[in-house]
Amino acid sequence: MKLITFDDGRVGRLELEERIVIPLRLPSTRAYFESGGHAPETGERLRLDDVRLRAPIVPKKFFHTSGNFREHEDESKSVDWSHPIHKGIVFFQNVDAIVGPDEPVIYPEHLTSELDYELEIAVVIGKPGKFFGVDDAPGHIAGYVVYNDITARDIQRREMASGVFSFCKAIDTFNPLGPYIVTADEIPDAQNLDMELRVNGRVRQKSNTSRMSVSIPHLVAYHSPQGYSAGDLISTGTIQGVAGFSGDPSLYLKPGDVIEAEVERLGVLRTPVVSWEQGHGTPVPEKVDW
Amino acid sequence: MKLITFDDGRVGRLELEERIVIPLRLPSTRAYFESGGHAPETGERLRLDDVRLRAPIVPKKFFHTSGNFREHEDESKSVDWSHPIHKGIVFFQNVDAIVGPDEPVIYPEHLTSELDYELEIAVVIGKPGKFFGVDDAPGHIAGYVVYNDITARDIQRREMASGVFSFCKAIDTFNPLGPYIVTADEIPDAQNLDMELRVNGRVRQKSNTSRMSVSIPHLVAYHSPQGYSAGDLISTGTIQGVAGFSGDPSLYLKPGDVIEAEVERLGVLRTPVVSWEQGHGTPVPEKVDW
Repeated sequence: MKLITFDDGRVGRLELEERIVIPLRLPSTRAYFESGGHAPETGERLRLDDVRLRAPIVPKKFFHTSGNFREHEDESKSVDWSHPIHKGIVFFQNVDAIVGPDEPVIYPEHLTSELDYELEIAVVIGKPGKFFGVDDAPGHIAGYVVYNDITARDIQRREMASGVFSFCKAIDTFNPLGPYIVTADEIPDAQNLDMELRVNGRVRQKSNTSRMSVSIPHLVAYHSPQGYSAGDLISTGTIQGVAGFSGDPSLYLKPGDVIEAEVERLGVLRTPVVSWEQGHGTPVPEKVDW
Repeated sequence: MKLITFDDGRVGRLELEERIVIPLRLPSTRAYFESGGHAPETGERLRLDDVRLRAPIVPKKFFHTSGNFREHEDESKSVDWSHPIHKGIVFFQNVDAIVGPDEPVIYPEHLTSELDYELEIAVVIGKPGKFFGVDDAPGHIAGYVVYNDITARDIQRREMASGVFSFCKAIDTFNPLGPYIVTADEIPDAQNLDMELRVNGRVRQKSNTSRMSVSIPHLVAYHSPQGYSAGDLISTGTIQGVAGFSGDPSLYLKPGDVIEAEVERLGVLRTPVVSWEQGHGTPVPEKVDW
């Protein structure tokens, strides 16, 4: 099933080939997972072109992991990055910074001048659980969704002096997610999906989930001592090709850019980048410093 | 007002001197802040001794900040800590790891042997907001609550090799919070409150909020580009006296210990530490490694 949120927060199932939305009687996509996969239809049929897709889910917790594609660690060496990118990195993403397909990332020009993209797959957790092993992990994996981990590299470098990076990835609008959740039954092999991110039509990142150095069930089990709620997300790390490790500052995102983050079978997440003034209609505010 | 959650999730107002609980017709303490401070009574009066206090709030987001008390940075130098503890550190805490007063921290013996405590004050955000300045911040601060930031130091050191620490503070039961939220109107000066943490009655941490190097409104404004929802928490960093920076490994927590985390006007948060077997009734599980 392709699970969507649309219009003012309605939940639906998408029949992609027919471009039809089948609304579901559910308060949220989280409720779908909390109920164990109950999806009662309302009887309506809507045309996809007549609805506005929103972020497919706002989870209770959004685990952000990193370092699972070694190619991303390898490329970090080209810019003398301050820390090795070991696998096992985890922190929590800002669930209030999630935006949906075609929703803009608003450039906070007073805070950064090095805005970067990171194509990732996020796993949707289907049921509560904690402290489970690798063999039990597949039973907790309910679906997958495309995630673009927008990052302010200049803020990240400053944060990492204290051994943390979070603010740089947690600013308002920095978490594009979508266009829909694909349930696990529609993905025959999650470790063999092509991934590609384009900026203004030009390919910047390209890889395949087979290049992860840890399996997704292993990753989900490893982080389970932190506990999962139904509908939680866990991202799986980005691939090579980010602007910040390219040595070419002209590759950083700019207002007017359009990002397309694509994963085989999971669709294309399109994200325009807009200036502060275009996004908020007000001048850039003063930076709070200390 | 002293706002509590009790029994199976009921919301109430505590009259501490009279030891009386006045139940409120609200689905959660978050709803109190989301409604702008609406607190309709049910007409009941309960004795405090007849109810079981729970964690006073489970926020949508729990911002964890660090480095605001320079004395904690100073003590870190005594153990050759890998990173300076600059102010400005922020990440998100695990809202599923929150436990209430008298609820145990369950020692995950397969994951750590260096369990530490950190007394902190958490600020309760009263209304949504983002990108605001220091002058506007007081209008967003609705209350305060005691927080004990339980930390596995051995995991933290391992994580910090990659410039992140989060798992070490996010394990199940590692976020004791309570006993109640004190609304801001009852705190004449949040920058002049005594703080003391005891383990088995012995003082381990002792300071005063006047020793923060940044004001609470400044802290709240600084992190506002990440956006706040009503009821969000933001912790303000710990004080000197943690076990991990003492040079004495015998000060780490052990099953059987009882922690009392106290802040003037905010009450005492009591937390027993129990073994895995005592907490779960099962043998310690196998560690998922890689």
